Amino acid sequence: MSKRIGILTGGGDCPGLNGVIRAVVLHARNTHGWETVGIRNGFEGLYEQQYVDLDPAKVQTILARGGTMLGSSNRANPFGYPLRMPDGRVEIHDVSSRCIANLERLDLQGLVVVGGDGTMSFGQKFIEKGATRIVGVPKTIDNDLEATDYTIGFQTAVEVVVEALERLATTAESHERIMIVEVMGRYAGWIALTAGLAGGAHVVLVPEIEYDIDKVIAAFNRRSARGVSYSIVVCAEGAKPKGGDYAVAVKGDVTKQDKLGGAGQRLAEVITERTEYEVRTTVLGHIQRGGTPCAFDRELATRFGVKAVDLIASGQFGHVAALENNKLVGKPIAKAVKKLKLVDPHGELARSARAVGIELGD
Amino acid sequence: MSKRIGILTGGGDCPGLNGVIRAVVLHARNTHGWETVGIRNGFEGLYEQQYVDLDPAKVQTILARGGTMLGSSNRANPFGYPLRMPDGRVEIHDVSSRCIANLERLDLQGLVVVGGDGTMSFGQKFIEKGATRIVGVPKTIDNDLEATDYTIGFQTAVEVVVEALERLATTAESHERIMIVEVMGRYAGWIALTAGLAGGAHVVLVPEIEYDIDKVIAAFNRRSARGVSYSIVVCAEGAKPKGGDYAVAVKGDVTKQDKLGGAGQRLAEVITERTEYEVRTTVLGHIQRGGTPCAFDRELATRFGVKAVDLIASGQFGHVAALENNKLVGKPIAKAVKKLKLVDPHGELARSARAVGIELGD
Amino acid sequence: MSKRIGILTGGGDCPGLNGVIRAVVLHARNTHGWETVGIRNGFEGLYEQQYVDLDPAKVQTILARGGTMLGSSNRANPFGYPLRMPDGRVEIHDVSSRCIANLERLDLQGLVVVGGDGTMSFGQKFIEKGATRIVGVPKTIDNDLEATDYTIGFQTAVEVVVEALERLATTAESHERIMIVEVMGRYAGWIALTAGLAGGAHVVLVPEIEYDIDKVIAAFNRRSARGVSYSIVVCAEGAKPKGGDYAVAVKGDVTKQDKLGGAGQRLAEVITERTEYEVRTTVLGHIQRGGTPCAFDRELATRFGVKAVDLIASGQFGHVAALENNKLVGKPIAKAVKKLKLVDPHGELARSARAVGIELGD
Amino acid sequence: MSKRIGILTGGGDCPGLNGVIRAVVLHARNTHGWETVGIRNGFEGLYEQQYVDLDPAKVQTILARGGTMLGSSNRANPFGYPLRMPDGRVEIHDVSSRCIANLERLDLQGLVVVGGDGTMSFGQKFIEKGATRIVGVPKTIDNDLEATDYTIGFQTAVEVVVEALERLATTAESHERIMIVEVMGRYAGWIALTAGLAGGAHVVLVPEIEYDIDKVIAAFNRRSARGVSYSIVVCAEGAKPKGGDYAVAVKGDVTKQDKLGGAGQRLAEVITERTEYEVRTTVLGHIQRGGTPCAFDRELATRFGVKAVDLIASGQFGHVAALENNKLVGKPIAKAVKKLKLVDPHGELARSARAVGIELGD
Repeated sequence: MSKRIGILTGGGDCPGLNGVIRAVVLHARNTHGWETVGIRNGFEGLYEQQYVDLDPAKVQTILARGGTMLGSSNRANPFGYPLRMPDGRVEIHDVSSRCIANLERLDLQGLVVVGGDGTMSFGQKFIEKGATRIVGVPKTIDNDLEATDYTIGFQTAVEVVVEALERLATTAESHERIMIVEVMGRYAGWIALTAGLAGGAHVVLVPEIEYDIDKVIAAFNRRSARGVSYSIVVCAEGAKPKGGDYAVAVKGDVTKQDKLGGAGQRLAEVITERTEYEVRTTVLGHIQRGGTPCAFDRELATRFGVKAVDLIASGQFGHVAALENNKLVGKPIAKAVKKLKLVDPHGELARSARAVGIELGD
Repeated sequence: MSKRIGILTGGGDCPGLNGVIRAVVLHARNTHGWETVGIRNGFEGLYEQQYVDLDPAKVQTILARGGTMLGSSNRANPFGYPLRMPDGRVEIHDVSSRCIANLERLDLQGLVVVGGDGTMSFGQKFIEKGATRIVGVPKTIDNDLEATDYTIGFQTAVEVVVEALERLATTAESHERIMIVEVMGRYAGWIALTAGLAGGAHVVLVPEIEYDIDKVIAAFNRRSARGVSYSIVVCAEGAKPKGGDYAVAVKGDVTKQDKLGGAGQRLAEVITERTEYEVRTTVLGHIQRGGTPCAFDRELATRFGVKAVDLIASGQFGHVAALENNKLVGKPIAKAVKKLKLVDPHGELARSARAVGIELGD
Repeated sequence: MSKRIGILTGGGDCPGLNGVIRAVVLHARNTHGWETVGIRNGFEGLYEQQYVDLDPAKVQTILARGGTMLGSSNRANPFGYPLRMPDGRVEIHDVSSRCIANLERLDLQGLVVVGGDGTMSFGQKFIEKGATRIVGVPKTIDNDLEATDYTIGFQTAVEVVVEALERLATTAESHERIMIVEVMGRYAGWIALTAGLAGGAHVVLVPEIEYDIDKVIAAFNRRSARGVSYSIVVCAEGAKPKGGDYAVAVKGDVTKQDKLGGAGQRLAEVITERTEYEVRTTVLGHIQRGGTPCAFDRELATRFGVKAVDLIASGQFGHVAALENNKLVGKPIAKAVKKLKLVDPHGELARSARAVGIELGD
Repeated sequence: MSKRIGILTGGGDCPGLNGVIRAVVLHARNTHGWETVGIRNGFEGLYEQQYVDLDPAKVQTILARGGTMLGSSNRANPFGYPLRMPDGRVEIHDVSSRCIANLERLDLQGLVVVGGDGTMSFGQKFIEKGATRIVGVPKTIDNDLEATDYTIGFQTAVEVVVEALERLATTAESHERIMIVEVMGRYAGWIALTAGLAGGAHVVLVPEIEYDIDKVIAAFNRRSARGVSYSIVVCAEGAKPKGGDYAVAVKGDVTKQDKLGGAGQRLAEVITERTEYEVRTTVLGHIQRGGTPCAFDRELATRFGVKAVDLIASGQFGHVAALENNKLVGKPIAKAVKKLKLVDPHGELARSARAVGIELGD
């Protein structure tokens, strides 16, 4: 039997996962003569031994396809895995040793783990428990990994948000409204800030900068004073007002707090309370992470997949493929998952936003 | 002074309005030598005398632009118009006579009123009060006017929904989820049914067919039994369960009813209550009615605008431009606003949906 | 063995073919319990007995995919079929009897033939030779079949052309150029005229109207006189100057004629000869007929596929599915292929074009 | 009178120019209180004194718009400027001193010159002649400037090419054809290679690697032997066969050479001569450089524009804004224009292409 490698995708899906899978399969076969086995549904598939043999024909047309052909799973954590017992109850177990045993039985040259923070940290723990032949490909729509300039899926999310901003802008303008668009980004505001810059937003609120609601409203008023009666606000889902307390923002009415929804909806409530502007909120949600990747992500996914196989071939286990100053390098997984990359409130991107008149609320 | 005509756009905006304005301005000038005056913000602009002179240069690049360059307004009803009094209170007044007087002062060959149901019915009342030189262009994103095969904006909304369905499908598939997409359509399910057909949805719920939640769940189960663990549901905002009572659907817990959101959110709640499927809801909202029109709507908008000027030129006042069996005709406004065009549960479109396996819940 | 039907796609591919195949397979199975056999590569596959069993799983994800999963072929004509002899020569043979024998051996409830003019006429001849259980779905990117309001693929082509026009317009404007865009349409100008209307073109040249080059140049000059130094020309590949003689158009230099390329290139040569405008030509070519169908075509393809199965189920053999006044009907194949639907130079679409200032060259 | 700066755009247009103009105007006004004067049509406008005052309102909606609102010109070279004499003849003159005098009369804090190689070198010469207050923004669709990681317009071109590849792939597949797509890139193959990687091409030919036609044909044959009868070739307009001599490639028929068209057409001829594959060529042409910029380019254009104003404000004249390892920096113009950035045949991008099975012809 010829040698082979494995691949699994974990965590939330994003555009580009299939491009990684395709590149891994093609490079392994073309360059090294290795077969590739796909492990379905992330670590669940490793535990349940759900495997699929991959070959060039199977990955032929997936480069342009969103999602992951291998599936993902909510039973993602092998160290705290929900097992359904015969009596119907669900118990949480550590199944990592069983996973590692299954992995050994597969007898792979190496395993490519594609995932974000969580998936990577499980990979790291596997290595520490002796399953050393693991390499990683970083994936998060939020682009918040310190290890790499770009993660796959991020640029597609930005393109989707910018297209939505364009669609919403014409309505906002026609009806003279404040249009709030809530986008992904619980801890990091990269999608909000990049899309806000590219989409001509007037206010951008990110988790890294607690916003002063008075400054946000002042921005609307400045535009209004110039005769422009609409504004586009991009609001990351993790954006918070100064003090982080919405009750304060709506003037102490604590009872209100419970009824408030996401960050966009909350902001809308406050603006409506405090001004006469007509406000509408749109939560873009899952359309940001699904569908066909933009060319940038297709290219990046392909290069990441190629690099992952290179890491295996050169024995650089325990490393992730990363883009550093436009060059593909390998970086220790441990380091890659350690630290979030956050928007610097005084960095070049934030300064560029302010320079073109975007209110960041600080 | 040369002769001139007027144009106003009323109601919610939609892609194609600018195409109508452009065609009216160009045809009036090119063919008849008439100038065109734009009335801003619908009937509000007629009351407030907010006018703008339009010429070919001003409409040069608007064909591809969403929204309406003339603006729209919430103060749309001249027969019940919110007036702010000197003491700050808002009183509702009938300002129609003043509007008609302003219209007479403009001394137009004719006025093109672009709008939906509401706007058209105000136009009809103006005619009945003596302002007879009015013609109409029907506009509703919902395509629910009996008078015309297609209204502008509808096809663009369908394209936007189908693109969103594609983005959501890859995520649904990767994560084995029920993905509910709430789309526009309070009374008519044209967007939901057409987009569902074109976007490969598995369940489509429209206002015209009260759905049996058991049948909806059975559709998920049938797919699940075939090993397909995800489903896409397109749910019109006006879709209702049989009996119309959500409390019943969630097994009599009346207290729950109040907390429920829109039709998509409510459906998600019920499915979550009654099954173990993981459910996600996306409310597409305003991105369906904003942004650049698709080619179909740009063409239709242009032809409608040309026809509106033809109606004025031939003295067919009191008529709207309409598409009947692919031919442009004039139809009495009174007739155009009288009756909604609804999805026929036994018509060809619904039957085509069932034929390809779409569950309509009946 | 359960009953079954067959399907083949012939002629040039276009967006929507897969949607027809999908709907046929699903409706046959869901409604009638029939299997579907796909015949590969049009009539070539019938002669060579290249079959593939189709089922819902195989057509699951093809609705959004361009081209045809069954393939098409240049060896399309069973009445004049190129056979390679053992000595390497190619001889033309009538293989229709063999095809019909193969068809009988398949023992189908009916055969769905999806194709344009040529494919349909072969189908009609098969019927005349006794293979009567044939129904058709009309397909031509050019929308030039008298039998149906719309053919699949046409609207997608129009969307693609309009998007290209938008991209070219900004370049034309920045550089003050005449930009000629050659589009499909050898005999009928529907793509050119519809896309020209929707894309804001300034000159549209269609096969149905021989153009007067002086009028075309006069249109550029009129714009130039208004200070607008660029123009967009949409030129159908079948557009011809008055008299049809390019040599005349370029002032009698007959030797030039041979070197001239397509209709767009020729027009560019003449304009360059006779004016000082800077001219650029773009031939859109195959991108008009490939790729994902727009929502309109996905819907239409689905409805056509459903109707084709209905025609078989109701025994209406010898008919094609057609859209007549927005209703799906069956029409005799013989009638469907008899007559091209051409642009009426005095019809509403051409008049709308002139009304918004488009020069048609007549 | 308040202080002011100037801006001109030179050379071929590309998506993102308007984004630079907008950012310059907004940042100058918002941050420094400077007005901005736009110089129309590149250096022609400087000579002819065609100026336009820019303000926030004028640049409000141009971020998403392709081309350049300032226009560009073929009379681009102030050191060899075509002047029309009273007798109608055109003479070439050095008008640079007059341009510089006009520039001094404008009394600007600084001039932003947006352009490629040519435009930048004129800027550099102006500086050497004493017009020192010049800064630059690099622009070339080809991404071939050593000074910067990315130039504006490049990523949009790649997205457009990838979309075209997708449309062409389904046709190629349905008809079993070799589909050649000629893309921009006279000296550098960045568009071809990046789009080929992202678009799933099978052969990519770039100017930096003279291709061995035997290897190209062998790639088709390998696919054919696996039962895959179509291939997608991306061919940069500057791609050449080994030896650079097409006559050799078509086996010594020198007379043929003259009739051959562009690189794509020539390649098609050779393949047709030497094989039985059916070949089609598409020349994407100007659609690659027109139209709305992708989000990546809108962001980059904004950041470049902001940086250009920063360079003026900090007195870093003679520098261009550049992206170096994802950071915005200033680099000497002289250095920026000195050296083309070419695809390294042994670099990571080329190796990634080979790894996924793309034939580069070497």
